[in-house]
Amino acid sequence: MSAEIICVGTELLLGDILNSNAQFLAQQLAQLGIPHYYQTVVGDNVERLKQVIEIATSRAQILIFTGGLGPTPDDLTCETIADFFGVPLVERPEIIEDIAQKFAGRGRVMTPSNRKQALIPQGAEILPNPTGTAPGIIWQPRPEITIFTFPGVPSEMHRMWQETAVPFLQNQGWGKEIIYSRSLRFWGIGESALAEKVTAYLNLPNPTVAPYAGKGEVRLRISAKASSEQAAEALITPIEKQIKDIAGLDYYGADDETLAAVVGQLLRVSKETLSVAESCTGGGLGQMLTEISGSSDYFWGGVISYDNSVKVRLLGVNPEDLDKFGAVSATVAEQMAVGVKTRLLTTWGLSITGIAGPTGGTDTKPVGLVYIGLAGPNDEVASFEYRFGTMRGRALIRHVSANAALDLLRRRLLTR
Amino acid sequence: MSAEIICVGTELLLGDILNSNAQFLAQQLAQLGIPHYYQTVVGDNVERLKQVIEIATSRAQILIFTGGLGPTPDDLTCETIADFFGVPLVERPEIIEDIAQKFAGRGRVMTPSNRKQALIPQGAEILPNPTGTAPGIIWQPRPEITIFTFPGVPSEMHRMWQETAVPFLQNQGWGKEIIYSRSLRFWGIGESALAEKVTAYLNLPNPTVAPYAGKGEVRLRISAKASSEQAAEALITPIEKQIKDIAGLDYYGADDETLAAVVGQLLRVSKETLSVAESCTGGGLGQMLTEISGSSDYFWGGVISYDNSVKVRLLGVNPEDLDKFGAVSATVAEQMAVGVKTRLLTTWGLSITGIAGPTGGTDTKPVGLVYIGLAGPNDEVASFEYRFGTMRGRALIRHVSANAALDLLRRRLLTR
Repeated sequence: MSAEIICVGTELLLGDILNSNAQFLAQQLAQLGIPHYYQTVVGDNVERLKQVIEIATSRAQILIFTGGLGPTPDDLTCETIADFFGVPLVERPEIIEDIAQKFAGRGRVMTPSNRKQALIPQGAEILPNPTGTAPGIIWQPRPEITIFTFPGVPSEMHRMWQETAVPFLQNQGWGKEIIYSRSLRFWGIGESALAEKVTAYLNLPNPTVAPYAGKGEVRLRISAKASSEQAAEALITPIEKQIKDIAGLDYYGADDETLAAVVGQLLRVSKETLSVAESCTGGGLGQMLTEISGSSDYFWGGVISYDNSVKVRLLGVNPEDLDKFGAVSATVAEQMAVGVKTRLLTTWGLSITGIAGPTGGTDTKPVGLVYIGLAGPNDEVASFEYRFGTMRGRALIRHVSANAALDLLRRRLLTR
Repeated sequence: MSAEIICVGTELLLGDILNSNAQFLAQQLAQLGIPHYYQTVVGDNVERLKQVIEIATSRAQILIFTGGLGPTPDDLTCETIADFFGVPLVERPEIIEDIAQKFAGRGRVMTPSNRKQALIPQGAEILPNPTGTAPGIIWQPRPEITIFTFPGVPSEMHRMWQETAVPFLQNQGWGKEIIYSRSLRFWGIGESALAEKVTAYLNLPNPTVAPYAGKGEVRLRISAKASSEQAAEALITPIEKQIKDIAGLDYYGADDETLAAVVGQLLRVSKETLSVAESCTGGGLGQMLTEISGSSDYFWGGVISYDNSVKVRLLGVNPEDLDKFGAVSATVAEQMAVGVKTRLLTTWGLSITGIAGPTGGTDTKPVGLVYIGLAGPNDEVASFEYRFGTMRGRALIRHVSANAALDLLRRRLLTR
């Protein structure tokens, strides 16, 4: 038994809107443990929609449609489905009454075109829409096929799904098994290197383990199929522990935990504080740290020393060293870190100076060269050189630089 | 002749990621005037992917695949396509060399699993990936079928599409009628208010004008259908001019022009400089300004004064005023702006202090209350109060605050 998601709307084919409905339904089906193997997008076109229904009925038993339920002539999902199964549409007075009431509630009068929304296939149940005018249907045109239709407006669709579709699916005995996932996050190791380290896990049947990469980091998703969240957890936890042991410090957090959140939590526990000095990231490191509500407990602020004069004036960087070694150098990174730490009176000072490009690179100092400085208790100070390469673009170099700085502090806090 | 978009990845079926690749490709195909009638999402599964290829080849001539080109065993798009058409994979040494070079550039060693990415169907052309390791292919396995493959990482896919796929499609003589759009951007006016002002334009047949809203700003997209970009421009330009006249200062830029870019250009022209003092945005304003390469010509840096001690120590805010008026106040915003301007010796100083939430609000100072300070030449100083409301969330309040500050400076620079 499996489901298929069919999103109807020419606006999706024109790229006018993001198909967030497909993502929502996909997440919901996964949580219910109802497998789905295909999603299809098709325009507001009778013949093509019929062809899509033909294909879907040959490979899925639950067909979930979104879009095309509105009052205008190009909304034709419901009549096309009825026509495909050779069943007439009937006007349902309770829908007309509901629409008329909703219009009255907004001080408007129902238009004739809305009557169209009261036509549903003979034998179908109404799937009520509490917030909009277009109801959906739940319909079994054949014993082995169940059809759901939803309007394309995400907020209406979500509520109809939760309030009516989910209980219906569960009553049918579908969705007994759930799929539950945890995403483990890694920094400082590439996708292929990590995959090789955990290669024994990549072919497990349940839970499954799959790597994916994005924006400088790698994730491993552990997905378990089980009868309950608890049972899924019991499958995931031992694998998670083994993978964490293999990965060591390259593992930094799970699911929505960012490096900034992990570092923040470590500082909160150790009752220490942090300040930053940023050149090429221009404030991006501070922004990451302050995405977390409550970060003021440990993050005190910093200096954006984009111009060299600011490095000298606000951070106390030695102008002679700036001349001698250049702004993008280990020496300057260290002086920036020490400068911000001592001026803001924090436990740790973290600095970034680099060449984000696309211009400004030289043979000896190419685009992507970044120095990160870290100053800490007992006059501890160190710097680290990174070469992020020229091909990844300015935005990614800045993003990776800020996260590399956070990762450095994370490793330092965990290894003392 | 039509195209079909096929997105491969179990993460899409699990709802882990939004299918932004389908939207991007849909927009691009629309711009090129290449019709496409179906989008399909399928998991990393050989048999189901083959079935999808079977269906797609029966109804489309251009098949565009994204995802499944990585180095791990679950990445099987390329081999499945080759297998479907009964063509062997061949290892291409130029791909291996390219991957090895990219690894070397990042100071890493290529892993054996990456060799897999060098296997492409016999007879296929390499579609180069300038920023990642996974190349795509352009392949005509049959005279009437053209296949493109792209990695799932959006930034890599976009560049490969623009640099190689678009010229290829145009060379083939496809995409003769184009849809060309310009997006006008507005700050400081709501969607319905703007729609009312330009209501006469919203029913034009060609070009069409459509409003849409997002992240605190409103856009009007003007789209023309024509035989060439030039012909489309000729349709768009007069409408664009009329709308700009109607909107006045609420219009700030077009397409990819951000407020930070517009302000930067104004400062560049007037040969003036800017510094920032940020509390609740934590560096986000500096980050926006430095997204632009070359921003060091006018942006000198700033202070992230997240903790009150930093406002006093680095910006010279009066501690008694902090006590009396609170950190989120007009007085403190003005002192921050003056403080950063005088300490960094810039023409303008821009400050933000506010309550981004979700905690920290009070009856008199609710979440969403933000003060922006602006200090300029001849001891000019002013502050502005904003109430962004509690419902929009921390990230959006911070985003809107930083842009409101930039918009304030933009209006000041344009009205002197």
